[in-house]
Amino acid sequence: MTETPTIDDVRAAARRIAGHAVRTPLLSNAFLDEVTGARILIKPENLQRTGTFKFRGAYNAIASLTPQVRSQGIVAVSSGNHAQGVAEAARLFGEASTIVMPADAPEIKKRRTERSGGRVVTYDRRTENRDAVVAAYIARHGGTLIHPYNDFHVIAGQGTIGLEVAADCAALGIVPDEVLVPCGGGGLSSGVGLALRDAYPSIAVTLVEPGDFDDYRRSLAEGRIVANAATAGSVCDALLAPSPGDIGFALNRASHARAISVSDAEALAAVAFAFRELKLVVEPGGAVGLAALLSGRAASFHGQTIVVVLSGGNVDPDVLQRALAVEDRP
Amino acid sequence: MTETPTIDDVRAAARRIAGHAVRTPLLSNAFLDEVTGARILIKPENLQRTGTFKFRGAYNAIASLTPQVRSQGIVAVSSGNHAQGVAEAARLFGEASTIVMPADAPEIKKRRTERSGGRVVTYDRRTENRDAVVAAYIARHGGTLIHPYNDFHVIAGQGTIGLEVAADCAALGIVPDEVLVPCGGGGLSSGVGLALRDAYPSIAVTLVEPGDFDDYRRSLAEGRIVANAATAGSVCDALLAPSPGDIGFALNRASHARAISVSDAEALAAVAFAFRELKLVVEPGGAVGLAALLSGRAASFHGQTIVVVLSGGNVDPDVLQRALAVEDRP
Repeated sequence: MTETPTIDDVRAAARRIAGHAVRTPLLSNAFLDEVTGARILIKPENLQRTGTFKFRGAYNAIASLTPQVRSQGIVAVSSGNHAQGVAEAARLFGEASTIVMPADAPEIKKRRTERSGGRVVTYDRRTENRDAVVAAYIARHGGTLIHPYNDFHVIAGQGTIGLEVAADCAALGIVPDEVLVPCGGGGLSSGVGLALRDAYPSIAVTLVEPGDFDDYRRSLAEGRIVANAATAGSVCDALLAPSPGDIGFALNRASHARAISVSDAEALAAVAFAFRELKLVVEPGGAVGLAALLSGRAASFHGQTIVVVLSGGNVDPDVLQRALAVEDRP
Repeated sequence: MTETPTIDDVRAAARRIAGHAVRTPLLSNAFLDEVTGARILIKPENLQRTGTFKFRGAYNAIASLTPQVRSQGIVAVSSGNHAQGVAEAARLFGEASTIVMPADAPEIKKRRTERSGGRVVTYDRRTENRDAVVAAYIARHGGTLIHPYNDFHVIAGQGTIGLEVAADCAALGIVPDEVLVPCGGGGLSSGVGLALRDAYPSIAVTLVEPGDFDDYRRSLAEGRIVANAATAGSVCDALLAPSPGDIGFALNRASHARAISVSDAEALAAVAFAFRELKLVVEPGGAVGLAALLSGRAASFHGQTIVVVLSGGNVDPDVLQRALAVEDRP
């Protein structure tokens, strides 16, 4: 039996991250409402510390360790956003972090991780097994591994996004009908769904995946965890987990979540829309919820109040350039 | 004697724009605080309707007209942000707007103005006098001209930014020491200064101009309105008003405002910083306050609590590209 966090764990996470994570706002955009025919509430986690929601879960997981365990060091495996979240969270506790990254990870992500005090250990993707590298590292040096999504406290931390959305909706007197959440391994979506279903028991929770990485959709359909065939090959690099984590999967099933997918072209069009209209820098994987709205795939949004989580903004300038090159509409 | 708005006029503007303008949040960024050694409160008016603060003043000015006068049409002269603000505000009142633009204005700005229902009338910069074109248009067709900055109600509308900042600071228990505001004709800065000096009588109001367009600094120093020598030639296209408007000038003098300037290179570096670190799309003219912080010109910021207004986000992709090309630091 998988132990899953409850709304009380999310509330405890909110108390832990307060003053460290950015309390992101809930935004609206009149033009987006017009083109979708819906009332869209934007949760911009690209404005979060380190540029993505990952900081919330990482901070909560590290805060939940005993000081004694924490002092033995923090370890994570990531080539991107989780790396920066963990390194920055560990830094705030004055603890060392080691991030295992492929040697060919983008230089800028290595440098940003190091900027937050993370020690980057690289391995060769072609000749070395990542999990073996991490196991060997921990056997030798000690430390606690923070999983990017299949972790009780990480999911509780991501759930704080849902608490904030619910509080802001309450202040505005709004009841949302649906939430659209980018989905890779399911840590973000399961936490957000947990918190929002607590506030709004009938809210629809929709996970949005990249086209060829629809492991969550297939897993929900089959009622068991199945994996993606590919592990690379989408512009949504933040959403390429091999399969759903079992903690998030149990939560998402309990939330009656459904999953839909968008193409790379649709994700890039959403990045361009965010740039031109929302004036927000969003990475493709962070924009898939917006892509689902804009691509016209979901006429059912019409007249609804929809929360869309923009999960991250660590986009490479050349990817943005690709997105903007597609069309230059006003 | 110039009639200037009071804090009550700003409060009345806030009531008028409520529900139409975006109530923009007050953001913070841990990395920005670290690099500046200050506590920076970011007011992101790039998230405002039409992408800049201009909508606030335009809406308030149009709302302040009698229905009878309003129904005779709205006219504005602008090649950029004011055009979109006026057209969008007029649209919300169901009124026609006519925007006089140079024929060589960027196509995208024409299209965006038209998207908001504005009728674009072009003139030839080389052979026609802009003011004569507008006067002829109004003589023939009627309509009320909304000045981009030297207008009582426009300034009161921009002042609502200051009210929101003060309310958010109060909620956070923060007293800001200084506000940095981009400055062209002085409509934004004078309104914001008015509202913030009401809440914090000793707050320092600092206007930030582009390097060679320091008409406000010279005007404040001389105690009378003086003009810029040039009318073009800065990347901060939003800040190239020929000279301070007299309403804003009177208010800024009353606020004991000072003016500083930044170079084009510093403005572009701030655009890049906003993109990489804040995940916000900001145009050069909107980023000059941030540029003043980052350029190290003002060591006096250290340890202070500083409000910085990011006034707009309508940046051309090629200008962003130029900004990002300068350096590629993490």
